[in-house]
Amino acid sequence: MNLRIVFRTCAMMLLAEGLLLVLPLITAIIYGESCAWSILGTIGIALVLGSLGLLLTKTEEKVIYSREGFIITALSWLVWSAVGALPFVFSGEIPSYIDAFFETVSGFTTTGASILRNVEEMSRGLLFWRSFTHWVGGMGILVMVMAVLPKMTDRSIHIMRAEMPGPIVGKLVPRVNQTAKILYIIYIGLTLLEITMLLFGGMDLFEASVHAFGTAGTGGFGIRADSIASYSPYIQWVMTAFMIVFAVNFNIYYLMLMRKFRAIASSEELWVYLGIVAFSITAVAINIRHLYPAIGDTVRHAAFQVMTIISTSGFATADFNLWPPFSKGLLFLLMLIGGCAGSTAGGLKVSRAVMLFKSGTRELKKMLHPRSVSAVRLEGKTVDDKTLSGVGVYFAFYIAFQLLAFILISFEPFDFETKVTSVVACFNNVGPGFGAVGPSGCYADYSVFSKLVLSVSMLLGRLEIYPVIFLLSPSVWMKKR
Amino acid sequence: MNLRIVFRTCAMMLLAEGLLLVLPLITAIIYGESCAWSILGTIGIALVLGSLGLLLTKTEEKVIYSREGFIITALSWLVWSAVGALPFVFSGEIPSYIDAFFETVSGFTTTGASILRNVEEMSRGLLFWRSFTHWVGGMGILVMVMAVLPKMTDRSIHIMRAEMPGPIVGKLVPRVNQTAKILYIIYIGLTLLEITMLLFGGMDLFEASVHAFGTAGTGGFGIRADSIASYSPYIQWVMTAFMIVFAVNFNIYYLMLMRKFRAIASSEELWVYLGIVAFSITAVAINIRHLYPAIGDTVRHAAFQVMTIISTSGFATADFNLWPPFSKGLLFLLMLIGGCAGSTAGGLKVSRAVMLFKSGTRELKKMLHPRSVSAVRLEGKTVDDKTLSGVGVYFAFYIAFQLLAFILISFEPFDFETKVTSVVACFNNVGPGFGAVGPSGCYADYSVFSKLVLSVSMLLGRLEIYPVIFLLSPSVWMKKR
Repeated sequence: MNLRIVFRTCAMMLLAEGLLLVLPLITAIIYGESCAWSILGTIGIALVLGSLGLLLTKTEEKVIYSREGFIITALSWLVWSAVGALPFVFSGEIPSYIDAFFETVSGFTTTGASILRNVEEMSRGLLFWRSFTHWVGGMGILVMVMAVLPKMTDRSIHIMRAEMPGPIVGKLVPRVNQTAKILYIIYIGLTLLEITMLLFGGMDLFEASVHAFGTAGTGGFGIRADSIASYSPYIQWVMTAFMIVFAVNFNIYYLMLMRKFRAIASSEELWVYLGIVAFSITAVAINIRHLYPAIGDTVRHAAFQVMTIISTSGFATADFNLWPPFSKGLLFLLMLIGGCAGSTAGGLKVSRAVMLFKSGTRELKKMLHPRSVSAVRLEGKTVDDKTLSGVGVYFAFYIAFQLLAFILISFEPFDFETKVTSVVACFNNVGPGFGAVGPSGCYADYSVFSKLVLSVSMLLGRLEIYPVIFLLSPSVWMKKR
Repeated sequence: MNLRIVFRTCAMMLLAEGLLLVLPLITAIIYGESCAWSILGTIGIALVLGSLGLLLTKTEEKVIYSREGFIITALSWLVWSAVGALPFVFSGEIPSYIDAFFETVSGFTTTGASILRNVEEMSRGLLFWRSFTHWVGGMGILVMVMAVLPKMTDRSIHIMRAEMPGPIVGKLVPRVNQTAKILYIIYIGLTLLEITMLLFGGMDLFEASVHAFGTAGTGGFGIRADSIASYSPYIQWVMTAFMIVFAVNFNIYYLMLMRKFRAIASSEELWVYLGIVAFSITAVAINIRHLYPAIGDTVRHAAFQVMTIISTSGFATADFNLWPPFSKGLLFLLMLIGGCAGSTAGGLKVSRAVMLFKSGTRELKKMLHPRSVSAVRLEGKTVDDKTLSGVGVYFAFYIAFQLLAFILISFEPFDFETKVTSVVACFNNVGPGFGAVGPSGCYADYSVFSKLVLSVSMLLGRLEIYPVIFLLSPSVWMKKR
């Protein structure tokens, strides 16, 4: 393990975080808020620690192997969360450091689970930072830095693989940082489009920005106690549309830019995803029709809530915790599936679900015809057995870690529904669950221990398990190559 | 598909069920109960239908392929349950046929989930039948017939594979029906031993028999409203010990008879199973120590409840639904794991959990050293990739079908905990769950539709998914070979 390059990259990441904090600083200054000082202090800490780190870890080595890639990714996310939590504590707006850490991990992992009992008391500078973490975490903090720096390291594909969600991470173009740049340009373009459309709906620039950040990263932090419920139907429809957009594999938008429409039309993951969305909206709308007399309201609430859950955003226009049990059951299932691979959404990912389904049907065929050979195909390509078995193993880890987290927080005095959906909503980066952590509730009443367990769950879900396992394995750290 | 041989085997199974019903008939006659007539009527129906079936399906063909093996297994279980439910309906003791069917499926699949609000009102003849279904279903209804008939069919290994639980079904001796005979001799021997020990504890022969049937099959039907709570500590300890015994792979007992103690000592599944049991009993005992002042009571209740859940029996000496949340969380996890492969227990099976864990660690190794090759070993043998990927696919089916069943019953007005644990307790053949279906509750208030969904879940769990899928696939039925 090349520890120098690991720490050096983390130091660079700290500098980058310091620079990003300038945006909320400006926001705080514009609104004349005293939280500006706490942000400024954090910037100072980030820059000093980052510079010290760079000075202490001079190295000629630039090659990153997969081992370092995993550790760099997990450690960078941890460091960003640890430092990103400071402004909340310094300003006194979230007095407990653990609470602030939970909130920041929830932000960067685009979970949107909150410990805030009253979000409307927060200063705008910190609300901006809180939502901005969604935006940065959505596409990946390391991918962002890779997009900006011309050539941070050789073989940085290992970092990208560790950070990007999905079973198969490919490069759009031969060079990794070029791929990162393209992804970020698409991401920024779509975010600006949403901000514009929200401005048209009567939001001011601050409101439009934070909600666009939350949608783009599929995070779900809002600025009102009732999330999006008190905004106009226009705003709610715009956000619904963009939640659909941001849970789609970004390769699709690259293909659009390249005018490769035939490739888009043949994307199985896209069509399965849209099919699940259409089916779920219809089923929920039928199930909740007695709650909303006007059919327009029924469809709007059904569409918004289905999208907020499958995209793992976690906004709400209605308290879906009070919806009929069938709708809740379906939403619970959608929490587990999540969006498409290569999007900012969390969950298992549609492509993994499709691959598991195809592996299953192949297994059934094999049982009837033991000597038959059949390949699993996805997106027109044969998926090799290694990838398939990797997806199977991932699924086992995915279930096992959620069960483990459930056992660890099981001593909490909440009901079964609250605890199960807390774990599922955190691990799949959704945010709100049912019961006490429903859209009108929050995670404040969990113990410090459980908040840490749920924070780790959010990181496990966002980084897709492996980087966090390696970070927690001393044997990986110690081993010399 | 050779339908003749499928129906012919089912007809033979019906005759066998008719013969087995003689035992509860004798019980009813001894106690002078009127339910004897309903049992006699069912015997008549089984014998007539079975004979008609044999007459109508004369065939020279004796070869069974895996396709027929799966269908024969699933269909036999369905037919046995459908006919086995009749005495309850004819006698009027369970007026609704769906309820009686649920109860009988629950019996044969050794689930032990009950719709009876007051089990103590039932006649002894039918209580005997109800518990006897556990015993017969535990080792397998087809395996039993294979053990008795000298050579029912060629290649009946396909039936045995379809019916026996576990990822790898091997033969103890070269001939299948010889293997079946050995398994049944061990099974009968252990059951007689338990009956004897329960008689020593003051039970009469009827009580000792039904409880031994329930323990041997890891079913859990009792004859008192409080299950085993009002029996003596001696009885409870005897049952605890036998629950440990019957959730162990029966190969172990064969190895004992063969005096191959070294092979036993090297059985990883056995040691992992015993390790989980020891850990869980300790953890639960510590967690519930404030509920039972005497340490002897604490350990006894902890041991009994842990064993009743991991062996998927479902008896109870305490209402574990009222236990502290950590103990409930741990018991929930044990429901999913279940006992060893090749035992009468349900659940995922310890060997599958071990293989998934080993596949996981191998995947982690591969990520760090992409070019390394490492094999997964179990019980001293290398597990081939086909078996490993088969276990992964099975796990995906296992989770997917439980989620599906949850969605299907989600419209029920019960709380989340009740619905989730209903599905888990039925699918894993445990019986009681938490909430309204806890040890002091029952499944009576579910709708007809949900009772059918849960019945199918029990069959899916007991037959390990594939036979039931094939039974429900018209394409498998129709296809000519």
